[in-house]
Amino acid sequence: MSERVPVLKIGDVLLVSIQVELEDQVVLELQDDLAARIVDSGATGVVIDITAVEIVDSFVGRMLATTAAISRMLDAQTVVVGMRPAVAITLVELGLSLGGVRTALTLEKGLEILARRDDSRPARR
Amino acid sequence: MSERVPVLKIGDVLLVSIQVELEDQVVLELQDDLAARIVDSGATGVVIDITAVEIVDSFVGRMLATTAAISRMLDAQTVVVGMRPAVAITLVELGLSLGGVRTALTLEKGLEILARRDDSRPARR
Repeated sequence: MSERVPVLKIGDVLLVSIQVELEDQVVLELQDDLAARIVDSGATGVVIDITAVEIVDSFVGRMLATTAAISRMLDAQTVVVGMRPAVAITLVELGLSLGGVRTALTLEKGLEILARRDDSRPARR
Repeated sequence: MSERVPVLKIGDVLLVSIQVELEDQVVLELQDDLAARIVDSGATGVVIDITAVEIVDSFVGRMLATTAAISRMLDAQTVVVGMRPAVAITLVELGLSLGGVRTALTLEKGLEILARRDDSRPARR
């Protein structure tokens, strides 16, 4: 049986840290879990930490794009953090430039981006 | 005979709550009604509440996009509220990311978004 990717809550932000191999079923469960958590918690932001991801393929690239799109539909902004140089290069080579998805080098900077966005909006709860 | 979707007015905002099954004829009537009401009332915003919508298909997704486009043409901003997690996932899977349409988790937050936008514009009447 495949592992689940945990979704943690830090204030108004949900943190997804990719530590396991992303098989189809894992990604589908993650997207289900994340969408449900955004609606339940009223989260305004999602950070996807891919520090542990050393190589990507088009499947992982599309996963990042679709997960961000689902979050946007639910009015939460996604920031992808911890992207390795080789991962960035591969994503561009694959033509997956993650348009519309913010990135930040570290988790800290990712949280800062989301906090700034939040300042310009009223509290959500 | 098919039911009509009522269009309610709350201040400068028109509220459309989708409670019935959206057949072709219902959608066409709704778009006619809504466009006429925007022009008659000078409404600056439209909230489409889809809380009661449990599953979507490409027809419903396109309806949301075209209704928002019609409202935009008439200078009213659309916010879609009450989207369920499964609906967000399906819309993304269908490739219907509702570009240009704001979403908010609740009716209250949707009205807040429109009220903020309104502050930055001159009164329309």
